[in-house]
Amino acid sequence: MAHDQPPRPSRRGFLKAGGAAVAAGASLGAAQVAQAALAKTPAHSVDPQLAVEPFYGLHQGGVVTAQQSHTYVAALDLTTEKRDDVIALLRAWTDAAARLTQGNTAAPLSTTASTQAAQVDGMVENTSSSAPASKSGAKDDGSAYSPVNAKAAPDSGDVLGLGPCGLTITFGFGPGLFTKDGKDRYGLAARRPAALVDLPRFNGDQLIEQKTGGDLFIQACANDQQVAFHAVRQLARLAYGTAAMRWGQAGFLSGPRGQTPRNLMGFKDGTNNPSTAKPQLMNEFVWAGATPDAPWMEGGTYTVVRRIRITLEHWDNTEVDFQEQVFGRHKYSGAPIGKKSEFDAVDLKEEDKDGNPVIPENSHVRLSNQASNNGAQILRRSYSYNDSTDFYIERWPPWRQETEYDAGLIFVAHQSDPRKGFIPINDRLAKFDMMNQFTTHVGSAVFAVPPGAKPGSYIGAGLFEA
Amino acid sequence: MAHDQPPRPSRRGFLKAGGAAVAAGASLGAAQVAQAALAKTPAHSVDPQLAVEPFYGLHQGGVVTAQQSHTYVAALDLTTEKRDDVIALLRAWTDAAARLTQGNTAAPLSTTASTQAAQVDGMVENTSSSAPASKSGAKDDGSAYSPVNAKAAPDSGDVLGLGPCGLTITFGFGPGLFTKDGKDRYGLAARRPAALVDLPRFNGDQLIEQKTGGDLFIQACANDQQVAFHAVRQLARLAYGTAAMRWGQAGFLSGPRGQTPRNLMGFKDGTNNPSTAKPQLMNEFVWAGATPDAPWMEGGTYTVVRRIRITLEHWDNTEVDFQEQVFGRHKYSGAPIGKKSEFDAVDLKEEDKDGNPVIPENSHVRLSNQASNNGAQILRRSYSYNDSTDFYIERWPPWRQETEYDAGLIFVAHQSDPRKGFIPINDRLAKFDMMNQFTTHVGSAVFAVPPGAKPGSYIGAGLFEA
Repeated sequence: MAHDQPPRPSRRGFLKAGGAAVAAGASLGAAQVAQAALAKTPAHSVDPQLAVEPFYGLHQGGVVTAQQSHTYVAALDLTTEKRDDVIALLRAWTDAAARLTQGNTAAPLSTTASTQAAQVDGMVENTSSSAPASKSGAKDDGSAYSPVNAKAAPDSGDVLGLGPCGLTITFGFGPGLFTKDGKDRYGLAARRPAALVDLPRFNGDQLIEQKTGGDLFIQACANDQQVAFHAVRQLARLAYGTAAMRWGQAGFLSGPRGQTPRNLMGFKDGTNNPSTAKPQLMNEFVWAGATPDAPWMEGGTYTVVRRIRITLEHWDNTEVDFQEQVFGRHKYSGAPIGKKSEFDAVDLKEEDKDGNPVIPENSHVRLSNQASNNGAQILRRSYSYNDSTDFYIERWPPWRQETEYDAGLIFVAHQSDPRKGFIPINDRLAKFDMMNQFTTHVGSAVFAVPPGAKPGSYIGAGLFEA
Repeated sequence: MAHDQPPRPSRRGFLKAGGAAVAAGASLGAAQVAQAALAKTPAHSVDPQLAVEPFYGLHQGGVVTAQQSHTYVAALDLTTEKRDDVIALLRAWTDAAARLTQGNTAAPLSTTASTQAAQVDGMVENTSSSAPASKSGAKDDGSAYSPVNAKAAPDSGDVLGLGPCGLTITFGFGPGLFTKDGKDRYGLAARRPAALVDLPRFNGDQLIEQKTGGDLFIQACANDQQVAFHAVRQLARLAYGTAAMRWGQAGFLSGPRGQTPRNLMGFKDGTNNPSTAKPQLMNEFVWAGATPDAPWMEGGTYTVVRRIRITLEHWDNTEVDFQEQVFGRHKYSGAPIGKKSEFDAVDLKEEDKDGNPVIPENSHVRLSNQASNNGAQILRRSYSYNDSTDFYIERWPPWRQETEYDAGLIFVAHQSDPRKGFIPINDRLAKFDMMNQFTTHVGSAVFAVPPGAKPGSYIGAGLFEA
């Protein structure tokens, strides 16, 4: 399975639980409180703040991990020309990510006078863990984001006390790590996997360059928005001078517990995903094998990210019957049209009494169905996004200028090979899906997500050290 | 006190709880499950999804209500010239808000064939409640957002099953309701409260017009981001043809339970707020009295909203000691500088051995303190925001172009009179606060938030019907 380390409650989790106990009137010492919390906290806590996911393992977390409620995904562009800088960054990221996912700060907090008050409160993080490789010195070539202040705060501190919140951090490599502008910057061009293709232009794409592409990918998922953002923010800071933010994107998932969550269009999203509980499905459709061109990708996956804006105002002005034709499902139950329950099988051959297909030809569920795509499947792990409003030119008559919601879907899909997964499926959808009149793909990226790291090693070691 | 109706668990809450029980293997009928849930749900449930806040009352909710974890605030501009249209909108909003806060859909779901599956699942909302005033017909004067489809879905449906989540909805009136471009559109100019001033330009303001101002204000707060956004989205839809979105803004608050939450700068925010548990403080500083110019505002408040972008990348590159000088507080404990505990009194007169003030002259905590502002206090009820990234020109040397976080604070403050509250306090901060080098005010609005509505009446009735 994905992870070979048992989850353990974090120190921060202890402190939080301890705080709650104290608030409830208990008069235990801090150590006793921590012990009590340890004894009471099950391995898989139901408290989303206390949940802990392992970082090290055969696979990276955040792919088949049960989906957390929030994400922050980001792409960075490498600004260095030195291979060793890239390796140092990946080492620093690996160490920091291992700390962060276990509920620690990105680096140990220093014990200056200013933090003594925190020590009194028992909130200073473990200082015995290995510190990330230190980043030092400004660059004079203009590539650095800004000079790094070696004395700067080791962590922004904004999630102290919040608990690990089930944080996973997933790293990926974009095409630009291998070749950029025709240049083999780091001697990796020959090791680029064939499956890491440049995505084709799809029908209707309206991609914004500044929300598209990227050399390096970070996906943080957690049961709290600030914990997810905090992780990316610390990692981006560690990259100052080596890589700069290209785009970042917050996302969320609001779902009744234990049920398929609804997207902003009001429909259940993810019903037909291949089951992550079935390793054979994951091996077939999600995990990359050891292909001759990229043996280092064994146990990794390929991830496509699309920022899909949805014209909610327009959608909200349509009838439920019409919306159901668009999706091919009933809105409230989530059942395929003509069926009663969400998980009833999608029968694409069923016809009504007039001989017309019950599930429309150009409905989303038909076009994206495995049976319409030569058996292809992808593991969707998408989030809604809501970046408030923007002032836009309307994209339909009468072309008025208007404030619109900048909201929609951060589509995230994992697959063993995009050439058999996202690309043919989206090609069909982009051409025929009725939903396209309400959706616009404005951002796009594809990444090779390498396997997990072994303790002491780093993410991507197989690429650089083989 | 603020609310005169006891909270009650909602139908949707019952259904959710029932669903959980069924998932756990119980074999009760739906009615039995609902009864079991009723018996077990305390009036003030600790489950944030089941929390219910009353809508009707002396005051509107969302002012002294214990702060929920998420918000969506929005301003709309009136596009109608008719006073009756405005009243009809406020009636429709009041009815819909009363439904939404109790965990119902904005309007009853219709019982067409397409919703029968939902009825089977027991998810159709109560249809006996009064429906909002129906909005019908497109306008030909170009003022409508788009023609309203009378058959359109009565609710976007994206929060079905999520529970009321402690939703509050707060409405406010901007200066433009009273006069706009010198015109008294609705015969209300003479009733504009003197306290509803046009905010002055403050030092350093860099306001974006499309994120500033607005004739009408909606603040939705809830324990879930989708529930908060859903509420504004339904209300904005009800306004089609009468008012159009000017700006919307999502916000959140990630805090360890029962502790003061930290903002994105990593400091605890809200420590020195006047206590909402002290009615005399609320009456003095928050609730408006029955002034001769605006007797209809008795029991209301005046709300200032500021979108404050924070240059997190820059802030993250500074030392903790420096950050503490900026705030005037210790970062980890939240204590005033030189003190041990968060709630230790701020002593502005304390000096170090050299005779220098312990809390710096231009620190945020000193400049905003009651003692520096002739006793003025405001009730801050702010949220962090995170609208992902934008491509910006840097605002400090060497003026590079870069992707930056579009994140910061949605500052929300309630007060009995902005001329004694926000305006003098912010005037001082805008001129002297060390924090200004990291913050930029890019949006601004002020609203008169009228008192709560009585059942059968509507928000703002006192303004229109006196």
